[in-house]
Amino acid sequence: MTSFLHTFLAPNSIAIVGASSDSTKRGYKALFGLIKDGYEGSIYPINPKVEAILGVKTYPTIMALPEAVDLALICTPAKTLPSILEQCGTNGIKGAIVLASGFGETGEAGLQLECQVLAAARKASVRIIGPNTSGIFNLHKKINLLALDNVKSGNVGIISQSGNMLLALALEAAKNGHIGFSIYIGPGNQVDVDFADYLRFLGEEDNTSVATFYIEGFKNGRAFLDVARQTTQIKPVVVYKSGSTKAGQKAACSHTGALAGSYAMTVDLLRQSGVNVVNRSDELLTVAEGLGLLLKAEGKRVAILSDGGGQATIASDRLIEAGLKLASFSEVTLAALGCILFPQASLINPVDVAGSTDDNPALFSSCIEILVADENVDMVFLVGMFGGYGIRFAEELKPVELITAKSIVNLSKRTDKPLVVYSLYASIKPEPLLLLRNGGIPVYDSIEHAVQVIAALGERGDYIHRCKTAEIQHPLRADPEVCAVFQRAQREGRDLFEFEAKSMLSQYGIDMPEQRVIRRDADYSQVMADFGDTLMAMKVVSKDILHKSDAGGVKLNLSGEPALRQGCKEILSSCRHYKADAEIEGMLVTPMAAKGVEVIVGVSRDPFFGPVLMFGLGGIFVEVLEDVAFRSIPLSRQDAFSMIEQIKASKVLEGIRGEAAVDKNALVDLLLKVSSIVETHTEIHELDLNPVIVYPNGYAVVDARVIISGKLPL
Amino acid sequence: MTSFLHTFLAPNSIAIVGASSDSTKRGYKALFGLIKDGYEGSIYPINPKVEAILGVKTYPTIMALPEAVDLALICTPAKTLPSILEQCGTNGIKGAIVLASGFGETGEAGLQLECQVLAAARKASVRIIGPNTSGIFNLHKKINLLALDNVKSGNVGIISQSGNMLLALALEAAKNGHIGFSIYIGPGNQVDVDFADYLRFLGEEDNTSVATFYIEGFKNGRAFLDVARQTTQIKPVVVYKSGSTKAGQKAACSHTGALAGSYAMTVDLLRQSGVNVVNRSDELLTVAEGLGLLLKAEGKRVAILSDGGGQATIASDRLIEAGLKLASFSEVTLAALGCILFPQASLINPVDVAGSTDDNPALFSSCIEILVADENVDMVFLVGMFGGYGIRFAEELKPVELITAKSIVNLSKRTDKPLVVYSLYASIKPEPLLLLRNGGIPVYDSIEHAVQVIAALGERGDYIHRCKTAEIQHPLRADPEVCAVFQRAQREGRDLFEFEAKSMLSQYGIDMPEQRVIRRDADYSQVMADFGDTLMAMKVVSKDILHKSDAGGVKLNLSGEPALRQGCKEILSSCRHYKADAEIEGMLVTPMAAKGVEVIVGVSRDPFFGPVLMFGLGGIFVEVLEDVAFRSIPLSRQDAFSMIEQIKASKVLEGIRGEAAVDKNALVDLLLKVSSIVETHTEIHELDLNPVIVYPNGYAVVDARVIISGKLPL
Repeated sequence: MTSFLHTFLAPNSIAIVGASSDSTKRGYKALFGLIKDGYEGSIYPINPKVEAILGVKTYPTIMALPEAVDLALICTPAKTLPSILEQCGTNGIKGAIVLASGFGETGEAGLQLECQVLAAARKASVRIIGPNTSGIFNLHKKINLLALDNVKSGNVGIISQSGNMLLALALEAAKNGHIGFSIYIGPGNQVDVDFADYLRFLGEEDNTSVATFYIEGFKNGRAFLDVARQTTQIKPVVVYKSGSTKAGQKAACSHTGALAGSYAMTVDLLRQSGVNVVNRSDELLTVAEGLGLLLKAEGKRVAILSDGGGQATIASDRLIEAGLKLASFSEVTLAALGCILFPQASLINPVDVAGSTDDNPALFSSCIEILVADENVDMVFLVGMFGGYGIRFAEELKPVELITAKSIVNLSKRTDKPLVVYSLYASIKPEPLLLLRNGGIPVYDSIEHAVQVIAALGERGDYIHRCKTAEIQHPLRADPEVCAVFQRAQREGRDLFEFEAKSMLSQYGIDMPEQRVIRRDADYSQVMADFGDTLMAMKVVSKDILHKSDAGGVKLNLSGEPALRQGCKEILSSCRHYKADAEIEGMLVTPMAAKGVEVIVGVSRDPFFGPVLMFGLGGIFVEVLEDVAFRSIPLSRQDAFSMIEQIKASKVLEGIRGEAAVDKNALVDLLLKVSSIVETHTEIHELDLNPVIVYPNGYAVVDARVIISGKLPL
Repeated sequence: MTSFLHTFLAPNSIAIVGASSDSTKRGYKALFGLIKDGYEGSIYPINPKVEAILGVKTYPTIMALPEAVDLALICTPAKTLPSILEQCGTNGIKGAIVLASGFGETGEAGLQLECQVLAAARKASVRIIGPNTSGIFNLHKKINLLALDNVKSGNVGIISQSGNMLLALALEAAKNGHIGFSIYIGPGNQVDVDFADYLRFLGEEDNTSVATFYIEGFKNGRAFLDVARQTTQIKPVVVYKSGSTKAGQKAACSHTGALAGSYAMTVDLLRQSGVNVVNRSDELLTVAEGLGLLLKAEGKRVAILSDGGGQATIASDRLIEAGLKLASFSEVTLAALGCILFPQASLINPVDVAGSTDDNPALFSSCIEILVADENVDMVFLVGMFGGYGIRFAEELKPVELITAKSIVNLSKRTDKPLVVYSLYASIKPEPLLLLRNGGIPVYDSIEHAVQVIAALGERGDYIHRCKTAEIQHPLRADPEVCAVFQRAQREGRDLFEFEAKSMLSQYGIDMPEQRVIRRDADYSQVMADFGDTLMAMKVVSKDILHKSDAGGVKLNLSGEPALRQGCKEILSSCRHYKADAEIEGMLVTPMAAKGVEVIVGVSRDPFFGPVLMFGLGGIFVEVLEDVAFRSIPLSRQDAFSMIEQIKASKVLEGIRGEAAVDKNALVDLLLKVSSIVETHTEIHELDLNPVIVYPNGYAVVDARVIISGKLPL
C-alpha cells in the first residue's frame, strides 16, 4: 500500500496560509526557507493584506488560488482552522500542516476544539499533520518548513514528538559532520495522521534508509506495530521511547498529553516487530547512523581487532553484556593471523596485535581480510588507535594509514559482514577515519556507542532471519459449543466460571486436568469413582466470588469422600460468611497437581496495543522482580520461544539444583494456543492462567480466569 | 601517613638511565620532554657513550652521579635491572620508574625475573614504579616522562592500567577543552608500589582534586579499600573497573596478567569504601570532571529546570533509574516560580518553562535562585537550550545569556548545592556555556552523562554522611571455650561440626535454635524431655560427610521417640551405604523452624580483598539471578542495612502478598555479629548460614557450616 503522504511531503506546490512579512513569524520564515533553499515547486503565500512577500505574489484567500495545491502550511491560530480546512477541501487541497497549538495538550476546551478540527478535516477530505506540530522538512526536495538552519541532507528520516529533541539531534549530526537527514516530521497531537502513517511513508521514501523515532506515547500502538512488521524487513527502524519511569511518564503527559503504557511492554512489542529500540537518548542517532550504513548482520558473532589490551577488554565486556558473542576463530584464521602478527600478539578473540601495527598499520587491513573470511565471524569490530598512528607514532605513517583505510573500504564493499570502528582519534577526525566513514564504515569515539550499533545490527539480522522462517499461525475456527458458553455468560452478566474457562481451553486442545463440578449429593460418588484416592483440590463455583482464596473458597489435598463432604461444608460456611447472598453454583473438584515450575500466562487487551500476551515465572518473579515478557497477539512460534528465553530467570526452566529441564515445547504450544484462542474469541477481555505448573513432560493449568466483554448489565 | 611517593613523583632531580640520542627512543623523548616543558630540577642523563644529549651533560654510570638523585627513570632492558637497582641503592636513589617489559605478563620465566628484580630492589631499598609501566607525568611540576604531547595541566589525577586508556582520556580531555590532568601513573606490573600506594599519594597531592582509576585487576584489593576509606572523605575517587564479564576478564588477563575477582563483589566493596564506580568507559572522565568540580551533594533530591518537554521527560527517566529523586518543591517555591513563568509553564518538578525563556533567558538565573533556596532541593539540573538562545532565537539574546551565565556562576558560589547543566549546544561551546564551565559548573552534551555525574555527587554525599554517623564496631573478645573448639578441630584435622558451629555462634550472642546431639541410647529420652512433641529435624554428625543431604543424612518433621529412633536407623544405614568407613559422631536434633523468608549469609576470604560477607535471598535468587550483595568485613551498621536494601528482591523482606515485613533489625544484628566473629577468629576460612529463616520477629539459623584453616594434616 502506498502512503498518501508522498504527495503532501514531496509536494509540487505549497500554500502558506498566514504568510507574513514579519520576519519573526513562522509564516515568513517558511517562505524565506523555501526561497533560500531553492524549492522547485510553486509557492502560494496566502495573505489578504499585502500584494507580495519576499517578491512572491500573495493570494488573499485559499479560494483565490489558481490551482489545486498539494500541501497547505497553516500558520494561523487554532480558532481559524475549521473554516480554513473547509476552504482547503473546496479548493482541492488534500494535505495540511497545522502549526497552531492550544488543543488537546491544554485540557478539556482544547480537546473539544481538536474534535471540531478533525470533524472539519474529515468533512473536507483533508488530512492533517499536527496540530501543534513543530513542522516538517524534506531536504532532498529543498523543503524546510521548520525554520531550522544548517541541517545537512542525508539518509536519516526522523519523527520526533519533541521539537527540541530534533534540534538536539540536528546539532549532534552537525558535530558528527557525516550524518544528514532526509525527512523530519513533528507529529504534534496526531489528531489524524499518526506514527503508523509516518512509518509507512518513511518505509517507502527513497531517500530515507533508516526511520528514526522519538516517541513519548502512542495513540494507536497496534497500527504502528502492524506497519513496523512490514517496514523493518525493508529498512531499519529505530525508536527511542521515553517514559521508562513513572516520573518520566508524568513529565511526558504534561508535555504532549501522551499517555504511556507500560514501558517494558512497549519495548517488547516494538522489538517483536523488528524495531531497534535504544534506551539512551544519546544513542538514538548513533544507532540510526550505524544501521543506516550497515543495515544488518547475519549473526551475533563478533571479531574484535585491537591494538591495546585495555580497550580490547572493555569492548569484550560490552559486547557480551549486549548479548553478542565473541567469535571462535577457525584454525585457518589463527594460522593466518599468526603469520603476520608479532609472536606476542594475542590471536584468540579479542585479537590484540601487541605492537605489530606500531610501525605498520597496514596490517589492520590484512587482519580484517582474514577475519571477514572466517565463516565463524559475522561482524568485525576494530578497536584502538587506527587513524592516529600518523599522529601518535610517526608522520610517515600517515600515507600508510590512508592507503590502509582505502583498502579497508574496498574490502567492505566485497563483503556483507559489517565493520564497525572505535578509534581514540575519532573526535579529531583524521583523514584515514574520514575515508572510512565516507566509504560507509561508521567510526565512533566511544566503545559503548559502537557496541550498541553492533548489537542493533545483530538484532535486526536476527529479526529478518526469524521472519523468513516464521510459521504462519492459522486462526482457529470458533467452536459453536464454546461460543454458546460465552453467549450464556454474557446473557447472565458474568465472566466465565473456572470450569467453563478450563473446558473452553481444553476444547481448543490445551491439556487440562480432569475436572468435576459437584452440584448435588449424587455427584460425590461419581467424583470418587472417577478420581479414586488421588489427592483433590476443591474450589467454590460462584459468579459472586471473584477471589476464591480470600473467601475461604478453596480446599487443597482432600482425600476420600468424607473429606470432600467436609471440605464442601466448610467452603459453604466460609463463603456465606464472606458474602451472605453469593449465588453458589457448586464445587469444582480437580486432582492436585504435582510439584514443578510455576509460570504465569496472561492476556490483556491494552488500550494502545490491543491483545498482549504476558509470560513469566510465578509469584515473586512477577510481583517483585517484574521479570516478565510481553508479545503482541498473534504470536509466531519464534515469538513464543523468545519470550520464554527473554526472562531473567529462564535458567530455572532449564532445570536447577539437579532438576530436569521443563518441557519448553509444550509451553510454547500452550502460548500459541492461548494466542489463537484470544484471536478467535474477541469476547475474551482478560485471560489468566496462574499458575501453570510445567514439568519435564507437559504442564498442568491449575487456575484459569477468563474475564469477558459484552456482558449484559444485570 | 604521608606517602613516600611525593619525593619520587615531584622530584628535584631525575636521572635518566639509558638516555639516548636516538629520537625514537624513550630515553631521548623523556629528556626532550623535560627540557621542552621547562622542568626546574636537575636532569642527569646516564649514557657511557656520549658526552651530552640535547646539550645536557651525561654521566657514564649511576655511580658517577654527583648527588643522591630523587628519581631514576630506567629505560634499559629487563635483564639489566638487578644491577642497575643495586647501583641506585648504593648511590642513594630511592625511587625508580621501570619501563622495561618482559616480566610477569609474559609467563613463567618473566615472573622469575620479576622476583629477582623485586629482591634486588628490596635489598637496595629502592621503590619501583612498574616494571612494564607506560611512565608517569606530573604536569604541575613540568615533568612528563610519557612522550605524550598536548596534555593540559589540571586537577584530575589518573592511574591507568592501560596506556591506551590514558591516551583515550587525554584525547577526550582535549576535545572537552576544559579538563586537565595533574598526575598520571602507569602502574605496570606493580611488583612493588601498587594501586593503594598511588591512591594514598593522590589523596595527599595538592594539585589533584579527583583521583581517577582504570583498573583491570587488583593485586592487593584490601589495601586499596583501606586507603580508599580515608581518601574518599577528603576527595572524590572514581574507578572504572573492566572485566565485568568472563570474556573481559580473560582479555584483561592476557593483557596485564591481571586476575580479576568477581566483578559484582569488587564494585560493592569499592562503593562500601566511598569510591564512585562508573560502569561505562565513556563516563569515567565525565564523572571525574563533575566530581572534581562539585565534590558532593547533601542528598539525592534533584530539581530539573528545562525549556523543553522532551528533554525534561528523558532527564526524569534517567534520574529515577540512577537512584535519584525528583524533589517535591515547597509552596513558596511553586509560588515564586509561578510569579515569573508563563501560566502554561509546568511548575511541578520537572519544571518546564514552556516558552517563558524564549525572549528572556535571564529567567533561568531567577529560577535557579528559587530552586536552590528550597530546602527540599539538593541539586539543580538545568536541561535544554541554554547557551544557544542567541543562536536559535535572536542575536540580541546573546548578551542576555552572557549576563545570565555570570549571575548563575555567582549564585553557584553562594551555595553548596551542585548545579549541573545539559545543553543541546554544549558541543558548539558558545560563550555563555564557556562562562559556566570556567565558573566551575560542568556542562554536558548528553543527558545520560550529566545524570551519571549527578548520581555520583549524590552517592558521595551519602557516603560522607554515612561515615559521620557510622557506629564504630568493637571487635569481640575471643571466648576461650570457642578457641578450644577451634583448636580441637584443627588438631583433629577437620572443620567444625554443625553443632559446634552453632554453639560458637550462640556463644557470641547469635540467636540459635535449641540443639541436642544424640550419641547414646539414653540421649533419646533426654531429647524427648526437652523437645516434647515439637516436630524435629535430625542430621548426621560426621567429619567424613560434607554433603549431608546427598548421603541421606537428614530427616525432617520427626515427631515422637519411635520416629527419632527410626530416623537415626535410616540415616545410619544411608550413610554407611554412602561412605562405609565414615566416622559417625552422633545425630544432631533440632526443632523444625517455622516458615518465613529464607536468606543466606556467607563469609569467604577473598584472595584479593580478604574477608567478605555476602547476603542474599535463598535458592533461585542466589543461584540463578545472582541477586546478592557483598561487604568487606568489618561492616558498619549502615553497611549491613545498605546490603539488605541493595538486593533487587529486597521488597520480599518488606512483606509481600499480605505477609508482615521481616525483622530487619535482627537481620542487621546477625550480619554485624557474623562480621565481628570472623574478624576475631581468623581460623574461620569460610562460613555459611544457609538458610537463615527470617520472621517478623527474629530469625532461625537452620544450617551453619564453618570451614577452618590451620588444620593439622591427618
